[in-house]
Amino acid sequence: MEYKQLDKTTIIDYLENIQSVREFFLSDTIEADEIGDGNLNFVYIVKSLDDPSKALIVKQAVPYLRCVGEDFPLGRERMTYEIRALEKFYSIFPNFVPRIYHSNEDMSLVVMEFLDNHVIMRKGLIQSVKYVNFSEQISTYMSAMLFYTSSLALGSSEKRTLIDRFNSNTELCKLTEDLVFSFAFMEHETNDNENVKDNPHAKKLFADMELKEKVLDLKYKFMTQNDALLHGDLHTGSIMINEEETYVIDPEFAFVGPFGFDIGALLANLVNNYIHHCVVTKDEEFKEWLLETIKEVLDKFSEKFLNFWSEHKDSALLVDGYMQANSLNNYKIRFVKNILKDSVGFAGCKMARRVYGVAGVEEIRGIEDITLRHEAEALCLEIAREFIMKYETIESTDEILEIIRNAG
Amino acid sequence: MEYKQLDKTTIIDYLENIQSVREFFLSDTIEADEIGDGNLNFVYIVKSLDDPSKALIVKQAVPYLRCVGEDFPLGRERMTYEIRALEKFYSIFPNFVPRIYHSNEDMSLVVMEFLDNHVIMRKGLIQSVKYVNFSEQISTYMSAMLFYTSSLALGSSEKRTLIDRFNSNTELCKLTEDLVFSFAFMEHETNDNENVKDNPHAKKLFADMELKEKVLDLKYKFMTQNDALLHGDLHTGSIMINEEETYVIDPEFAFVGPFGFDIGALLANLVNNYIHHCVVTKDEEFKEWLLETIKEVLDKFSEKFLNFWSEHKDSALLVDGYMQANSLNNYKIRFVKNILKDSVGFAGCKMARRVYGVAGVEEIRGIEDITLRHEAEALCLEIAREFIMKYETIESTDEILEIIRNAG
Repeated sequence: MEYKQLDKTTIIDYLENIQSVREFFLSDTIEADEIGDGNLNFVYIVKSLDDPSKALIVKQAVPYLRCVGEDFPLGRERMTYEIRALEKFYSIFPNFVPRIYHSNEDMSLVVMEFLDNHVIMRKGLIQSVKYVNFSEQISTYMSAMLFYTSSLALGSSEKRTLIDRFNSNTELCKLTEDLVFSFAFMEHETNDNENVKDNPHAKKLFADMELKEKVLDLKYKFMTQNDALLHGDLHTGSIMINEEETYVIDPEFAFVGPFGFDIGALLANLVNNYIHHCVVTKDEEFKEWLLETIKEVLDKFSEKFLNFWSEHKDSALLVDGYMQANSLNNYKIRFVKNILKDSVGFAGCKMARRVYGVAGVEEIRGIEDITLRHEAEALCLEIAREFIMKYETIESTDEILEIIRNAG
Repeated sequence: MEYKQLDKTTIIDYLENIQSVREFFLSDTIEADEIGDGNLNFVYIVKSLDDPSKALIVKQAVPYLRCVGEDFPLGRERMTYEIRALEKFYSIFPNFVPRIYHSNEDMSLVVMEFLDNHVIMRKGLIQSVKYVNFSEQISTYMSAMLFYTSSLALGSSEKRTLIDRFNSNTELCKLTEDLVFSFAFMEHETNDNENVKDNPHAKKLFADMELKEKVLDLKYKFMTQNDALLHGDLHTGSIMINEEETYVIDPEFAFVGPFGFDIGALLANLVNNYIHHCVVTKDEEFKEWLLETIKEVLDKFSEKFLNFWSEHKDSALLVDGYMQANSLNNYKIRFVKNILKDSVGFAGCKMARRVYGVAGVEEIRGIEDITLRHEAEALCLEIAREFIMKYETIESTDEILEIIRNAG
């Protein structure tokens, strides 16, 4: 099928021909409306006029960055990887990704479940909303996704097939390489240069060679370590949540990369939210909940990852009978500790890049009072630096919390 | 073109239609003879009857392991990767791989330069032949091949394209995973079980959990670290040599893997040859030449790799201006030291696997006197263990030589 950009009228004709969508709406009349919160893509909500509770989401990529326009070309192939990742994740553990009703790589289009009573997690956290099931759910999501797409679960040839399906997500991988690991740590036109100018903190960051050597190590690891299929952009804006459920959306950055990158992205975003509350709301109870949540997410991740592993005797890595049980156990514990270490390093990079790099986060760049914003930025850079300088020696989640608590 | 297995008659018809081959032989009458030293493939020498000095080599893969027969199926796609690797290596640095006259992935066939006055390096080394240009040449080959196919030279998207071309060399990668890193360290039907039986050294190796944990780390690195395009099987049997020239052949195991693996393979094979001379010939002068050669190969590799790097300001890893010159220099020196460390670890695995695993090397398994053979095996396992246990802390080539010298 040849690619054609749909609009709210032509989308209805397109959907009428899709069996699974027809089964969902039956004979209802349907209508599409564009919803504006897609930065990269066009997103529509398609609703039944007969029963407004019946709705689906249609997402279509265009060959440019939607929020900027046709002057910023970006291959619509990113949707191919989003579709593949959603389908892969759904096949592993359906609870935490929206159900896919239809996908079409040629059309760069996906039709999925409408999450009608969920909010973007970042918005909720800014409003001090506690999500009590979150640590349990996201730790299951992350441990299952990472374990079951790694060489600890897959056979050698299955792993290579998986790499094959995601290896060419070139443009978005390069965006991360540039924006997360390079430009945000140096003078660059893409930075928030109004803030960089005459800013002693920015000057210090850009001249911090000790730190930047470590960032380069982590960038190299990001580019060359193919542990498992990653979401690739697992911040709290990619999570739809309510008190009961957690959904992970928008995996267009998906590729086979290092274990610690998704965990690090999540950790970074939780810490950035903590910083927001340190500086803006000073809501001590919520801050405490955030720290507990960070600890729970990381500890439960390790525990569940090891549990999945204990059910797998044979894989690309392990031949049954190669190692005695107690040695194998030690090996596994050390392996998971190394994932934690890397996560802390990646978290540091993800935090630091939000300060002066393109695409800040609401928690920090969104602070209107300039003094408070600079205070948040300083706190963010302080914790990020500790994370990056110490990640290789972190042994427990308590040490991570200590770094966060002691900052400021 | 549909695959068809050729023989010494049909090969002539095939070659008559290849322009580059016709240009080579002009109007000469040509004749093909099978030469027997291909373990995996059929190899023919095609000669001019008018001028016997004019000859080419034709290599064709069959969908099984030639030396065992049709009962041992092995995808002929391995030739696809051999062709791609030869062409890639030739395009980077033509001096050290045979010139390709024609290749055909569908036919799993390659026509290349006949190296008529070169011998397999392993044979020469066993006869104590010193190759004075070897360290200079192989260090240029390895540093150029590894550097120019890495993220230190390529752009992000070029690197992914390279991975794409080699990622599906699944069968041969799995052979290495199994044979080099797993089966040779445990009870397994593929091992040289006549020697394993009632052998205290084998028993000790298979029960050495401390060692096997490290081997598992190295296996994991082999499977998941995509630094650069590797030859994949760079032992002294894959090198054709004489006093002037060094050629690297048979890259059917090529894939994008860890920097240290090829260097480690070569190091392992030079040390195995040293062990042979310790036990069999006791040729002290040649042993000393081997040690000097090892040092030169490794030191020159580092030096040349850093030289190539100094000519490259922009790459997937580095954005020009990211780092101050002295810091960048420190980073690079540390980076290359890490390659050396990994090489030592991989060398240890490659050595140890030759003792009881399938496919021994002539230097050790070929020793007919059983007492001497066991002596060589013990020496090999001793050095291999030191390499594997200490690789992460090796700082210089002198430390490597010290391990080798002190053994026994």
